[in-house]
Amino acid sequence: MKLLRVGTAGAERPALLDAEGTLRDLSGIVDDIDGALLADEAALDRVRAAAESGELPRLDATGLRIGPPVGRIGKIVCIGLNYHDHARETGAEPPAEPVVFFKAPDTVVGPNDTVLVPRGSRKTDWEVELAVVVGRTARYLGSAEEGLAHVAGYAVAHDVSEREFQIERGGTWDKGKNCETFNPLGPWLVTADEVADPQNLSLKLWVNGELKQDGATAEQIFPVGEVVRYVSQFMTLYPGDVINTGTPAGVAMGQPEPKPYLRAGDVVELEIAGLGRQRQELKDA
Amino acid sequence: MKLLRVGTAGAERPALLDAEGTLRDLSGIVDDIDGALLADEAALDRVRAAAESGELPRLDATGLRIGPPVGRIGKIVCIGLNYHDHARETGAEPPAEPVVFFKAPDTVVGPNDTVLVPRGSRKTDWEVELAVVVGRTARYLGSAEEGLAHVAGYAVAHDVSEREFQIERGGTWDKGKNCETFNPLGPWLVTADEVADPQNLSLKLWVNGELKQDGATAEQIFPVGEVVRYVSQFMTLYPGDVINTGTPAGVAMGQPEPKPYLRAGDVVELEIAGLGRQRQELKDA
Repeated sequence: MKLLRVGTAGAERPALLDAEGTLRDLSGIVDDIDGALLADEAALDRVRAAAESGELPRLDATGLRIGPPVGRIGKIVCIGLNYHDHARETGAEPPAEPVVFFKAPDTVVGPNDTVLVPRGSRKTDWEVELAVVVGRTARYLGSAEEGLAHVAGYAVAHDVSEREFQIERGGTWDKGKNCETFNPLGPWLVTADEVADPQNLSLKLWVNGELKQDGATAEQIFPVGEVVRYVSQFMTLYPGDVINTGTPAGVAMGQPEPKPYLRAGDVVELEIAGLGRQRQELKDA
Repeated sequence: MKLLRVGTAGAERPALLDAEGTLRDLSGIVDDIDGALLADEAALDRVRAAAESGELPRLDATGLRIGPPVGRIGKIVCIGLNYHDHARETGAEPPAEPVVFFKAPDTVVGPNDTVLVPRGSRKTDWEVELAVVVGRTARYLGSAEEGLAHVAGYAVAHDVSEREFQIERGGTWDKGKNCETFNPLGPWLVTADEVADPQNLSLKLWVNGELKQDGATAEQIFPVGEVVRYVSQFMTLYPGDVINTGTPAGVAMGQPEPKPYLRAGDVVELEIAGLGRQRQELKDA
């Protein structure tokens, strides 16, 4: 299923994009698309049955904002340098084990919402990523297979990054990863049963219409199941938690000088095959 | 006021410790102690008036668990190496600007709850810290005075840290800071009007009765108001967000070999003058 949340920011209601591409209202069936729903197999089955009945009310998509597809996100764990080609372009060695950092859930916006260039920023950069949404509580998992079994679904994430704040201002990367609006998510949460192989997805990102990233999750150093297993050794993952699994080559930081960092007025578009498309216009904070 | 939340984990109700040391039930006045309350001056005034009336119902403290004093925490921003004496003991230069990392809100437990030593851990360490709870949305603040004006109150935090996960496993510190139960918080949220000077608080921590940390917020490299101002340049702080402002000298990592890292059975006690006391027993995860 393609689950989503539509409406004004902070007041989104649950919806479904059906097999015919029609938007359907789920608010009569579930309260929200969130960890509680994703952990509740019976509720998901009710949604599935309602979707198949064809009787869910249609929603008029005209002018309707799409919000992030998961509400009440508890935490966002991010994996750095997780693509062979991206590690090369940053000049970093491929990591021996996953690099972990965080984004605060309050950085999450809808897939087509405005992204703000922070005040004082000179190095706002793009990163298209496969986001994994956790469906079951994961603690000390024993295998990558178990890791995959804890995934509820997948979505497109834009891991917007300010490179000076991230790398040149001391301390950890978190400083450059948590500016307001820095994590567009969506449009949909595609349930795991509809993603045949998360290691066989193409990811693309354009800036002002020009293709900048053209990657494949086959290039991931640590595949999705292994990432979930690994992270669960250090922290407990809860339903509704999100893991941004890293970005392929093609970010601004990896280009020759003068590096084409983002500015107000730029338009970024992102797409992962089967998971939908995002479009953000940048404005100054 | 000393605000707190009592009851079983996940079902705490709001309470108040009055000037006579009597526990009072606030559940007839407010839903919870959280960001929504802290941002609502009128609601806080109602609580204050109810407290002064002396008519709030008493709560029997016998056997009552104290939870974390803030519900629905959005994010926890942590400041590393923020005490001159702690920077020295770790062998680090005092940072030129605050070092920022994150703890996930799901690491928060009550002040006297069990702390779990992660599986595979050999270097679980303690850190007593002054936690700052944000009361007003803070974006690009202009001064440390403005920073202080956005603080709702203060609490004791235990920033439990696994040093191998934090430092020796690649990537950022977050890996060693986010294990389950790694952020005991409380017992109380003391509102800012009752903390005359946040830079004049003594912090103490004992392990199995032996005093290990005996510090003072006067030693902070970046004082509270400056920390809030600084962090607000990189991310937006919302009511109910928490900032752990760093730890003074005396952690296990700073001791001669063999360093006395924590094990199951150890008991850690923490105290900040005026903000109350915590006590945790360690168990294996």
